[in-house]
Order: sequence, then C-alpha cells, then structure tokens
Amino acid sequence: MLATKLYAPTLREVPSDADVVSQQLMLRAGFMRKTANGLYSFLPLGWRSIKKIEAIVREEMDRASAQEIMMPILQPAEIWKESGRWNAYGAEMMRINDRHDNEFCLGPTHEEMITTLVKNEINSYRQLPVNLYQIQSKFRDERRPRYGLMRSREFIMKDAYSFDVDEAGLEESYKSMYDAYTRIFNRCGLTFRPVEADSGAIGGSGTHEFMAIAEAGEADIVYCTKCDYAANIEIGKPGIMKQEEEALQELSVVDTPNATSIEAVAEMLNLPLHKTIKAVVFSIDGKVVLAIVRGDHEVNEVAVQHAVLGSVEPEMATPEELEKVGLTAGFISPVGLQQTEEFTIVVDESVMETYNVCGGANKKDAHYVNINPKRDFNVEDIIVAPIRLITKDDVCPTCGGSLEHAKGIEVGQVFKLGTKYSEALQATFLDQNGRPNPMIMGCYGIGVSRTLAAAIEQYHDENGIIWPRSIAPFEAVIVPINAKDEALMSTSETIYSALQEAGVDVLLDDRKDRAGVKFKDADLIGYPLRITVSKNTLENNEVEIQIRKTGEALSCAIDSVATKVTELLQNL
Amino acid sequence: MLATKLYAPTLREVPSDADVVSQQLMLRAGFMRKTANGLYSFLPLGWRSIKKIEAIVREEMDRASAQEIMMPILQPAEIWKESGRWNAYGAEMMRINDRHDNEFCLGPTHEEMITTLVKNEINSYRQLPVNLYQIQSKFRDERRPRYGLMRSREFIMKDAYSFDVDEAGLEESYKSMYDAYTRIFNRCGLTFRPVEADSGAIGGSGTHEFMAIAEAGEADIVYCTKCDYAANIEIGKPGIMKQEEEALQELSVVDTPNATSIEAVAEMLNLPLHKTIKAVVFSIDGKVVLAIVRGDHEVNEVAVQHAVLGSVEPEMATPEELEKVGLTAGFISPVGLQQTEEFTIVVDESVMETYNVCGGANKKDAHYVNINPKRDFNVEDIIVAPIRLITKDDVCPTCGGSLEHAKGIEVGQVFKLGTKYSEALQATFLDQNGRPNPMIMGCYGIGVSRTLAAAIEQYHDENGIIWPRSIAPFEAVIVPINAKDEALMSTSETIYSALQEAGVDVLLDDRKDRAGVKFKDADLIGYPLRITVSKNTLENNEVEIQIRKTGEALSCAIDSVATKVTELLQNL
Repeated sequence: MLATKLYAPTLREVPSDADVVSQQLMLRAGFMRKTANGLYSFLPLGWRSIKKIEAIVREEMDRASAQEIMMPILQPAEIWKESGRWNAYGAEMMRINDRHDNEFCLGPTHEEMITTLVKNEINSYRQLPVNLYQIQSKFRDERRPRYGLMRSREFIMKDAYSFDVDEAGLEESYKSMYDAYTRIFNRCGLTFRPVEADSGAIGGSGTHEFMAIAEAGEADIVYCTKCDYAANIEIGKPGIMKQEEEALQELSVVDTPNATSIEAVAEMLNLPLHKTIKAVVFSIDGKVVLAIVRGDHEVNEVAVQHAVLGSVEPEMATPEELEKVGLTAGFISPVGLQQTEEFTIVVDESVMETYNVCGGANKKDAHYVNINPKRDFNVEDIIVAPIRLITKDDVCPTCGGSLEHAKGIEVGQVFKLGTKYSEALQATFLDQNGRPNPMIMGCYGIGVSRTLAAAIEQYHDENGIIWPRSIAPFEAVIVPINAKDEALMSTSETIYSALQEAGVDVLLDDRKDRAGVKFKDADLIGYPLRITVSKNTLENNEVEIQIRKTGEALSCAIDSVATKVTELLQNL
Repeated sequence: MLATKLYAPTLREVPSDADVVSQQLMLRAGFMRKTANGLYSFLPLGWRSIKKIEAIVREEMDRASAQEIMMPILQPAEIWKESGRWNAYGAEMMRINDRHDNEFCLGPTHEEMITTLVKNEINSYRQLPVNLYQIQSKFRDERRPRYGLMRSREFIMKDAYSFDVDEAGLEESYKSMYDAYTRIFNRCGLTFRPVEADSGAIGGSGTHEFMAIAEAGEADIVYCTKCDYAANIEIGKPGIMKQEEEALQELSVVDTPNATSIEAVAEMLNLPLHKTIKAVVFSIDGKVVLAIVRGDHEVNEVAVQHAVLGSVEPEMATPEELEKVGLTAGFISPVGLQQTEEFTIVVDESVMETYNVCGGANKKDAHYVNINPKRDFNVEDIIVAPIRLITKDDVCPTCGGSLEHAKGIEVGQVFKLGTKYSEALQATFLDQNGRPNPMIMGCYGIGVSRTLAAAIEQYHDENGIIWPRSIAPFEAVIVPINAKDEALMSTSETIYSALQEAGVDVLLDDRKDRAGVKFKDADLIGYPLRITVSKNTLENNEVEIQIRKTGEALSCAIDSVATKVTELLQNL
C-alpha cells in the first residue's frame, strides 16, 4: 500500500484523557479515535492489526475443530430470565425495548443464546462433542469505562462454547481450547501466563485466565520462576509459614490508645509486623465473618468466601453489624470470642503457627500481647483455612521454586461451565442408554481488541509502538528520504514490488514530507522493519534496513532486500 | 472438512412461518436458525457463505482504493440531532439509554458517525479523496420483519463513505464504487441490474440501486431488452403516449350511478380504459394534490411528489381533505376546477394527448364524456408532468427498445450525498485558495446477508439450493456410498486429499447414513459438485461427478479427479 493512499492521521499531542500507554499510542499513531466514553472507531491501521489477530484466532480455533457461527447481538430477555441472569447481571447489561415493547439486551456474552440454539438440534450423544464460536462486538455498560480498549463498552470478543456428554469430554474440550489459546497468544507475540483463577459467581468447576503480563494490567497474579505454576492472586494457594517456636508467655492486656491499625500498634509497641495479627470483618450472606491474618499478610476475600461457603462476594461489615455481634472496630482478635449462628471466625493457617503475638483485646484502646493462637483461641470453634494472599516470600506450591508477582491484562479465559445453563434451559441429549442428560458445557473467551492493547502495553518505547510481526499493521515500511527524487522513488518502487512478490505486507511511504517526519511516524506506528532509501547508500546499490525492536541498522544490497527482509521477519 | 465434524442440522419439514424460498431453504439446509422475530443465527454452513461474500466485497473495495475501518454500533444521539435525523428516522431506529441516561442508537447507517470521525482530521484538499468502509451488523426495527434475511432487524451490511473536494471528484468516486459493485455482484454470481432510483428523503443528486432479479423481490423495476437502461419503476421516465387525433365532440354529462371506479364507468359506458381518465388525490405538505392519469395507467407517487416539489412522501387524502376543497370522491376530473393555495392539479403528459375521453363530472353519480383536456382543462392553471408509472407498452427512454418489467431484491445502493451531512456537521476542508468548503460525500451500501438470500432466490430447484461456486459453503462434496466400506472410504480420503491440495474447498461426507440421505442433503445444501464413490465405478478406477446446476453426471478416473473438478468449477 502507498502511504499517500492510507488514511492514518497521526497526532502530535498525547490526548489528555488517555490513561494508559496503549490508548495514548493508538490515538497518536492513528490506529483509533474515541467516539464517546468507552466507544472507539478503528481507523485503517488499527483495523489491519485487529484483522490479523482475528485471522490467527480463526486459524487456531478451526484447527481445534471449533466451528464458526454468528448469533445476533440482540438477545430476547426471555432466555436470560430462564437462566436467572436477567436480574443478576445488573447495570452492566444494556437493555433495549423494540417498537412492540419486547425486551432485549445487547449481548454481553452468549451462554443463554447458544444453549437455546443447540437445544432442539442436538438430541443424541452421537452428535456430541460440538464446539461453536463467533467473533463479534460485545456490550458491557461499564460504570467507569477506562484504559482505552482494555475496559471499553463495545469491544470485539471471540466467544466459544463446547458441549460434551460427560466430564471427561469437557476436560478434553477444555484442554483443546487451553492449547489453542496458548498457540494464539504465542502467535500474537504476547508475553503471557495461563493462570488458575476463581470460578466466582458464574459457577463451574475450573477456569484459567490468560494474562498478558503488563504494568497497566488490572489483575494481580503470581507465578513461579521455575515451573509453569501461575495463579490469580485471589486463588494462589499460599503454604503455611512457620515461625520459630518460643516458650509461651502469659497473655496480658496493654493500653494502645487510638492505635486502630495494626501498623500503629506495632510501632507503638516496637514489634515487627509478623509478631502481630490483624482482623478484617466481612458481611457474607447476612453473616458477620471475622477473618484473621498475620500483621504482615493481607486477607484474600475470595478465600474467605470459599472458607465459609459464601454464595456472594464478601462486603466489608458495617459499624452496625460489628456492634450487633459485639466487636470493637480496630481492637479485634478471636481471643475469648465464640461463633454463633450469625458470627463466624476464620483464621489463616499461618496465624496458627505464631507465638506470643499481639492482637486486639476486644475493647477500645487496648491490645493483647503474648497471644498464642493454639492456646488462646477457641480452636474447636473457629475455621482454620488458607485465607491470606500469597506473597513473594512464599514458595511455589507446585515445585517450591521462588515466586514473582506481576500485573496482568486478562486477554482470554477458558471456563468449565458444567450444567448450569443446560439445566436452566433444558438442553438435554439422550445418552447411550436412551436416558436424557444435560449437556456438559464449557465457554472460552478472547478479548480481541484487548489483545491489541495488551501487545502495545508490552511492546513500546518512548518513540512509539514496537509491533510483533504477526499483528503489525504492516510488516515493513519503505522510506525514500526524498519522495521528489525520481531515482529514490524508482528504487523504492522496485523494492516495494519485490517485497510484495515475496509476500511481505509492506507500505511505501511516498509522502512528500521531510525524512524526519517519516522516520518519526515509522517509529510511532511501529513497523517491525524500516527500509531507508537514500542517495548515500544508493551509490553502493544498497539500502539500510532498521529493526524497530533493537534499533539495529544494517546495509543490504538492493537486489537482496526481499530475501533479507523475509529472513529478518522470521525472527520478529 | 469432514461431515461428521460439521454442525449442520437439516430439517425435513418446511418451517410454517418461512415466507420465501431462500428462508425456507436456509432453515431446512441448516444454514441458519431463527432466534426471534427478524433475528437469525448463522450456523457454520451459512456463515461460510457469508464470509465468502465478505471476502469478495473486501477484495473489490480494496481494489477500488477504499480502506476498511470499524466504527461502533452504539452511536451517541447528539450527532443525529445535529443532522436532524434523530427525530426524522422514526420507530425504525432502535434507541437505548446507558446507565447514566445518555441517549444512543444502534446504528442503522453511519453517515453522521463517519462525518464526525473525519471532520477534525481532514483539513486540506491535499488529504482528499478518501473512501472508508466497514462490514458490520446494522439494526432497523422493521414494523413487520419478514422474508427471512431480506427484511430482518439485525443484518450484515457493508457501508462505505467517500469524501471529495468537488462534484467531479464525487463523480469519480461514485463511478469507482459503481464499477466495484458490478464486479462484486458478478463475482457472487448474481443476475442483477444497476437501476436508476429515487434519491428520496435522503437528498442528494443521484443514486443507483443494484437489483438482483427475483420474483420474491419487493421492488418493481423496468429494464430495456436492448440497452443498459434500467430503472426503479418509481423513477422510470415514460414517454408521451399519443392517441390518434379525433374531431372534438361536445362535452356532456352522463349518469353513472355508483360507478366510483374508472373500471366500473368504462364497463357501464362500454369504453376502452385508454379512453378514460382517472383521478387520485394525495395530501402532500398539507396541500391537497389531484393527480390525473389515463384510465389504463397508474399514478407514480414519487413523480407526483417531484412535480409539486413535495418534501415528504405523498399520503392519500382523507375524506375531510377532499371535502375541504370541494371534491366528490369517485367522480373527480379537472374539468372546471381551479387551483388554489391549498389545492394543486397535476396532469400526466399522456392525458393531454387524449381525445373525447370520459372522466368525473365533479358531482355524485355522474361523469363527463368527450373531455378534451387541451380544451376543457384550465391549462394555464395545472401542472403537466410525467406522473404515470412506466408500462411494458412503453419503449426504452434511452434507445427506443422494448421494455421488460421485473421484481428486484435491492442488494446494493450507491448514492451521491453531496453536502447534506458535511454541512450539518461542519465537515469542511481548506481548498487550494485556503477557503473552507464542505466535503462532497457519497455513500455506498451492500446488504451482505441479503445478497446470500438473493442468490438462493435466483438459484434453487425443488430439491434445494444451487450455489454459484464463489459463495457456496463448500465447492464440492465427496459422497462414499457406504461409509462402512473401507475401500470406498480409503478412495474417498485419497480424493479428499487431492482436492484439498488443488485448493478446492471440499467436504467429505463420512457419515454412516444411507446414500439416499446423503444425496438428498447434498442436493438440499447445494454444493456445486458431488463426487460419488461407489463399488460399481470403483471397479473401473472411476468415480462419478455430478453437476448440481445441470444434473449432468460424468465418469472420471480417480487420479484425474482434481484436474477435472478444478476445470468444472471454473465454469460454475
């Protein structure tokens, strides 16, 4: 393609409301424009990259025997009411009435729709397994759309749904998608980890999130530096941290006026944080839940929810709820407390391995010192569970290696749904014995537009984007230093033809702008290779090829540019 | 692909609510399923064909230097209010509020959006022309969705928008799209005509509709059997039909009790219809408009609207409106009537060439005989214009050849918009003299899903679909007569590999069903070629190739199947 024919308006200034690098660069480099809060238009460059990601997704989904279909964006409310999600979904689901006042939503996802689609068509185990997918715009009315494509209101998603006869079949479908996703994100050039994640409110028996590692990510993850272990921090299983055994001292109360945080208490009493315990009080399913971790640890809300078999996400308890069960905010420990119908105590495993620690005295302005949990808690009466967040001082639960923490952008998720939707919507098949069974489902999502943003978050420098070759809008750009110079243009065109013939996706920057402007744009847009055609090198029948990723520049004879470029691209 | 891996549930019965052949066949053959009124899911076979159409559209749009982008489906109300279409669009536009109560619509089209997108980016004549397109789901809340994909509420459309510096530029952009559309529909294998059409309410200076000729079409078109002339019947310009001159007889009144239609009067008075004139009364922009055509002609409402420079589509006048201007329904002619501020008379050109005709006497149960318009109408006071629909008795306005009438499915439209949107939304550029000018726009649509339906309307028989090769879900199917016979399966697989290597898009029907079932499905789904592998022919190292379109069957040596299939496909 010729740059003079390309609609790619670049911006000099960073837009003031762009809050992450990928958004800033996509706006500056002319990849997209903002239409309204959380709504973006893709311009030709951005759309080229999106189409390349889509093509990779299609190839790998097809290779995994999934079949592409297309369901409507408009979904009738009835099926969501049948599954119980019409109310459960809340304000994030965009709802619309048609001219006859029938209710619809704009699909945020398609579990109900796909289940309805197949339920009258698949009747026998002989027709299973089936895996159907689509690539489509999805809608979620985020309360606060932000981070550009990473949390927008209309976004491109690949969603797939598998149907199997039994759990073993689901395992196979799941594994097949897991492997396809691994290939997809590898081919997109992302640095990523599939991490164990929480199945949360959606139910189901297992899930992995595919996390692109990036500072701008919204998820906290932990991964092993030695083995494959990786988990969302919410689900990372910490081991038990032991402390050196000590002789048990006598429990006593000390005055700690106004020291309502464990940090303040530790400072006041000159104690290290790991010699303290701290309390966080939640409200879960109408119960007050007291969670206890070491002063140097943090509570994992999801683990607390699981420990008490909670059906909803924990919320912080209100002052009224604390009062109702007799707790004194800021000065709480389990010492002397009993569980009741409406009050549960959950203590982290590592707390049980502490000696002579300090914790709340359950009255205002006072703390206990020399708490010894095994001695001082009503151990018959409390739940002991791993409810702290895993830290970098923990070791890998799989291999004992050391752990790293990182931020991740969730670019994909694979999910064992089980029978939640097939039961709600009566999607059954007859098994080999002629008995009806609900189909066993899995669902598998990829954020296509978010993958684009994640790649930029990972690959950029102060001058612009550094595209992985596979999803770059063009693989190479040819820059004649002076487009008015006929010799330069003629050589550029020769190279352009040779590269096209070699199957390289190439742009010829035939604009009459100064070389500096073209170089700046090439760096900003981030073509993997730049081929500079200038008088100096032309004298030797050579051009310069610069690699965006490394900055490395090398000379190349004009008639071997195609070979050289092809070779270089293979390693980018 | 293997049929056992393909999700393609066929139906034995024609669904009762399917009102056109394309809809019936797409449901029966497992191309799509109905989700709700006017909403369809494409299954793998249907989606394969849609993607083939999309690929053709992309190739030809790119060849015409248009660039693909993607704008959001959700569009803010503000831009539609600026253009004045927020109210004008009516109930067909689906409207939705977000959680903060901001108003949006689901894009039925994107003129406002694209104009807003480019208006701050294109500032100079040097950046023009630009042509941007997208392929996207569009939404129109039809009062009565019907005809399957031909009038659905969510449909796939390719919409393109061109921006030029002047009318000459627009002409070029328009021509380029016109040619691209011609190539696209030719490549899709459609029988079609680009027809002149009415620019209607949308404004602009010219438009062609691309009409696929088919009985199920909703549009009436007329085309020349000798030259390229073709027009929507609404815009087809009839010539003046002369009648043989006669001596003018004396005007007189005859009783015609209860004869309120011109057919009844003609019968009562034993006159041929062309010796009568008839009246249709409209309400346009608050005026009563009396339209007069010959008794054997029909009024063209669009022509009437143009004749009186009406800004809205004509509606039939109410009895109250007739009364207000003193007209007696069923007995109206212009004889003795005068135009007023609120009453206009429009007479078709051919009426002025009649002699001694019969028409209403402007009183109940009475008609004039021997009306001679040039003598009896207040000729200074009436508008004479071509306001009748063109008939098959007319001749081609371009070459004088004979005309054919046909029904057409509108699969595409090209439109010269001019400055309607660039002026409303202030999309200006600086010309060579540094003066701001509104950009000159064109817009160009293709109904992608409708094109699929149109192809089936054109190509089918009592057994199923007969796909043009270019948009068939698979180009060929291999049917081993008995999938349990290892020799047949092994030969089938050999042929399958050979065809795949030759680049043929082929399905191997490896299902264990009876041959009859597979043949029926092959005919229903409509693969262009069927390769039958049976014991009989295998003895001679041959298979049978059947051409769906002609029914012709030919023998072919196994090792030359790939060559033969490739050759046959080239002519399909």
